Amino acid sequence: MSLVTVGSVAFDAIETPFGKTDKIIGGAGTYIAFSSSYFMEKQNIVSVVGEDFPQEMLDKLKNKGVNLEGLQIKEGEKTFFWSGKYSNDMNSRDTLVTELNVLEHFDPILPASYQGCDYLMLGNLSPQVQSTVIERLTERPKLIAMDTMNFWMDIAMDDLKKTLQEVDILIINDEEARQLSGEYSLVKAAKKIRTMGPKYLIIKKGEHGALLFHGDQVFFAPALPLEEVFDPTGAGDTFAGGFMGYIASTDDYSFENMKRAIIAGSAMASFCVEKFGTEKLENLSKSEIEDRIQEFVQLTDFDMVQTV
Amino acid sequence: MSLVTVGSVAFDAIETPFGKTDKIIGGAGTYIAFSSSYFMEKQNIVSVVGEDFPQEMLDKLKNKGVNLEGLQIKEGEKTFFWSGKYSNDMNSRDTLVTELNVLEHFDPILPASYQGCDYLMLGNLSPQVQSTVIERLTERPKLIAMDTMNFWMDIAMDDLKKTLQEVDILIINDEEARQLSGEYSLVKAAKKIRTMGPKYLIIKKGEHGALLFHGDQVFFAPALPLEEVFDPTGAGDTFAGGFMGYIASTDDYSFENMKRAIIAGSAMASFCVEKFGTEKLENLSKSEIEDRIQEFVQLTDFDMVQTV
Repeated sequence: MSLVTVGSVAFDAIETPFGKTDKIIGGAGTYIAFSSSYFMEKQNIVSVVGEDFPQEMLDKLKNKGVNLEGLQIKEGEKTFFWSGKYSNDMNSRDTLVTELNVLEHFDPILPASYQGCDYLMLGNLSPQVQSTVIERLTERPKLIAMDTMNFWMDIAMDDLKKTLQEVDILIINDEEARQLSGEYSLVKAAKKIRTMGPKYLIIKKGEHGALLFHGDQVFFAPALPLEEVFDPTGAGDTFAGGFMGYIASTDDYSFENMKRAIIAGSAMASFCVEKFGTEKLENLSKSEIEDRIQEFVQLTDFDMVQTV
Repeated sequence: MSLVTVGSVAFDAIETPFGKTDKIIGGAGTYIAFSSSYFMEKQNIVSVVGEDFPQEMLDKLKNKGVNLEGLQIKEGEKTFFWSGKYSNDMNSRDTLVTELNVLEHFDPILPASYQGCDYLMLGNLSPQVQSTVIERLTERPKLIAMDTMNFWMDIAMDDLKKTLQEVDILIINDEEARQLSGEYSLVKAAKKIRTMGPKYLIIKKGEHGALLFHGDQVFFAPALPLEEVFDPTGAGDTFAGGFMGYIASTDDYSFENMKRAIIAGSAMASFCVEKFGTEKLENLSKSEIEDRIQEFVQLTDFDMVQTV
């Protein structure tokens, strides 16, 4: 089934306790596309870069089956750039530089070949751009998933609330869920957020796993306990990419299959943090991913033969 | 199989955003005993109270099958008293009052009827007292589990390290694991702590669940996502009580059965936080516990029919 991903394709410069990078390739769209590519032979991206963006990297995406027709290359303009530094315990990060560049006036283009897509993944971008993409699809996809962040809650809450009404799943982290709902308890937050539009809510809790809420149902997916998190950048996007890649490839968005998709997404995210940027995500084998998913199966597997 | 629990039987005064209590019954030994009582018809406690401790409460424990032969009542002395206040988000608490009273010179008595016990649960007490109990058992139990806290790491690290060498399982929270090991990563912390003595380590992460480490194996148990945590006091002890009650009642301390025991302990802890103090734990039905355990089974259950 066909998947369209909307998200930034960008430059990042990252500093962690383990080292620092020069400008490397990043962006929500990049991480989502790399991650979902392991589940989909073909997919489509909507994004924008400047003329400074390396052709080599575009080729890498193309080689992963990513259709770049919807990726605009703006001559005379520069690619979005973000630079950040993580704290020693990796639990917080400071943004050092944000240069919007081509993202400032991003007007998404939906090529004809993207029309009729079954699944839409709206990576973190302005809610205005996200809803423009939905409008420009002549048919509503079967399932629309969306990511967002605190930043948009601070400066564009009204737009965000409008966009929320048009999506099926919201995928955010615990802090964002608390800010969006004004509730500290994630269970209460989840109830409130699901009155805002999305029938499904995934709350990512980083090293503590993820929760999926729908109706009265809740699913708790673990994170793999890791000896070292080398670079958390893009882990959330990688999770979303694995999740939507799995959903789209199986063409099944039942609650039961969403659980599996969350495990797939979590497995992909566990690879992402092992190296800087997209490095680890660029060259995984199917068997590595299968083994990792099996580690997740083992991690929470128990058989309650006797209760009390 | 027989279980001996060592731990405080005490008075608490608790303040949470939901209200405050007068002096109510608390103490690690009390929570452990109430919790394990749902898995064991009979069990034994080693503890000490002052003459101010209400007979009514001792009767409640007795009615739950708790043998009080090893519980000393010190005439002319007062029961241990702790008072604490939780922050608005319940994520931290301040100790307002600690009156050691009878605990100051606690010299544990192991009645003849306790000798030959199969399982020993050392609740949080001075490591000195914990190791005295082990010494006073003429035969080593099949399995010795132990809890401790930051306080003992601060003032009695040498004693603590000695006691650690004598136990099989250590049950502590994430903060304590980090302090004990000097490692931020829980995977690294777990490795280090298991060189200190215990072959098994359980790290409790509160609302984020619990991890069990043994050899190269790891198990991740979820916590039940709760709308409201009314009072977290005693949740860790209740977890330990459910865990050891389950192990002792099934007389099986394989890794597979420890996983089940962790789910049982987590289910008991999820009840504990629903009301102030031991209130909720005093009158549970078997079917309530079975239903709650089933909620845990549902919570992480998935069937990975297809991977990648």
